Amino acid sequence: MTDIRADWIAVDWGTSHMRAWAMSASGTVLAAAQSDKGMGTLDRDGFEPELLRVAGGWMDGPTTVIACGMVGSRQGWVEAPYATVPCPALPDGFVQAPTTSRDLQVHVIPGLKQTNPADVMRGEETQIAGFLARNKNWDGVICLPGTHTKWVHVSADEVVSFQTFMTGELFATIGSQTVLRHSVAADGWDDTAFADAVTDAMARPEKLAAQLFSLRAEGLLNDLSGPAARARLSGLLIGAELAAAKPYWLGQQIAVIGAGDLSKLYVDALAAQHAPATQVQADAITLAGLTAAYRSLKG
Amino acid sequence: MTDIRADWIAVDWGTSHMRAWAMSASGTVLAAAQSDKGMGTLDRDGFEPELLRVAGGWMDGPTTVIACGMVGSRQGWVEAPYATVPCPALPDGFVQAPTTSRDLQVHVIPGLKQTNPADVMRGEETQIAGFLARNKNWDGVICLPGTHTKWVHVSADEVVSFQTFMTGELFATIGSQTVLRHSVAADGWDDTAFADAVTDAMARPEKLAAQLFSLRAEGLLNDLSGPAARARLSGLLIGAELAAAKPYWLGQQIAVIGAGDLSKLYVDALAAQHAPATQVQADAITLAGLTAAYRSLKG
Repeated sequence: MTDIRADWIAVDWGTSHMRAWAMSASGTVLAAAQSDKGMGTLDRDGFEPELLRVAGGWMDGPTTVIACGMVGSRQGWVEAPYATVPCPALPDGFVQAPTTSRDLQVHVIPGLKQTNPADVMRGEETQIAGFLARNKNWDGVICLPGTHTKWVHVSADEVVSFQTFMTGELFATIGSQTVLRHSVAADGWDDTAFADAVTDAMARPEKLAAQLFSLRAEGLLNDLSGPAARARLSGLLIGAELAAAKPYWLGQQIAVIGAGDLSKLYVDALAAQHAPATQVQADAITLAGLTAAYRSLKG
Repeated sequence: MTDIRADWIAVDWGTSHMRAWAMSASGTVLAAAQSDKGMGTLDRDGFEPELLRVAGGWMDGPTTVIACGMVGSRQGWVEAPYATVPCPALPDGFVQAPTTSRDLQVHVIPGLKQTNPADVMRGEETQIAGFLARNKNWDGVICLPGTHTKWVHVSADEVVSFQTFMTGELFATIGSQTVLRHSVAADGWDDTAFADAVTDAMARPEKLAAQLFSLRAEGLLNDLSGPAARARLSGLLIGAELAAAKPYWLGQQIAVIGAGDLSKLYVDALAAQHAPATQVQADAITLAGLTAAYRSLKG
């Protein structure tokens, strides 16, 4: 047992994972823990016991918890209704989750929605807030690669507009669930195949469904290797995304927030388009956003 | 038991199904049978017993069998190497499958390949041959909708070029294996949603990955119905395909060969683009192609 005592607790609770940090009032991390009990595996009354199991040891008396992510969705602990852009990344409207323990005050950060075109985010708004807390008066475009990659236009400390691409989920699904599973390796990589595919897809993005089948045909006829096919699949999807997101990033300051390898692919692909982008690690940024939320609550 | 005696037997042997017809020398269908033992479920030495089980009752003495489809793939009964376009839909090079029964002569029709861009077909060439047998001197573009939709340019009785789109497989996979499964109904339809989505995708085909996620967001924010989401998913994919295949169909005579409902969607979507297309039922056309192959063999 530790004798950590948190002044408050930061929680990032997504669909498949939960991470928690014991924080000091000044924003220092005292301890960290995680769980694979994501929102997708929990009933509404399963959240509080899981939080106490993971982070209860850090609590002594009344404790404030700040949580972001799918924990605030309709299927989560409590629904934190979307705020509508344009608005700050952390708008008013944190929602308190119902708790059995009177000492526990859990504030859930709302996601953001856009009316037209219809779009939603939940969790990314906290990363955006973290990035803006560290980069005052930053204007530009933030790309958050992942299962559902987001492109977000930020100006004057507000989220102006955003667009979600299913690129990560398409990569996983098409590579494993279609005929391409015979051609695409489960791992391995080929940088040149990736770069060429980005170029091809940006030149003729509408040909995606045909370019995808060509991976199969190239495997059958020209011995395209599994790792090269995997890199090419990724390049075709990311290239098509960059073509569609061009109105977002062209001529803008760009930050890419996300896990190392995937974000590096976006940074490299953008660099090949003469669009330099700054890469930012996601974990520290999420925590910066949760800290900003805590301060706005206590401020 | 029947007392049918076939002069020859026509077989369409795909990945998941096999169909056989007892034929007279003049090309009349005497009987039909089918099996769910597709190529995907059989070892190399499993084909002959299955053929005899399904069609053996029609055989008395030496019998010629003409087979098309995945039965001729590397994983099939015998590999019938691809012929390279441009070439006739039924080029020379039928391959005899190895048999235990001396009375059985099984000729497998080769598929077609294209070197650049790399592409392959196996089975569709027989439908194309059947269509051309019924429509002498026809020049134009044949669309064969399916799991892997083919666009085929035909001129002077040869297949000039073709391109495969994974549209059907993407529709099935994206609708059932991604986050869109929460938004897209398993059945049901909305004609207007389909037509609008085709228009949207043709206007901005590169935005596919974003347009896909909008189905989820429209379901969350604007109560888009499951059947409308299903129709819109189909429309986005077919619209993107039509945009990419435009160099094939623009200003050309168009025939769409395939199962009723799916082909009707392509015909309607093309009509909305002022590109009238003739719809042709696939079953009769496959049989016409196998008959043309039999006649070319018997010279």
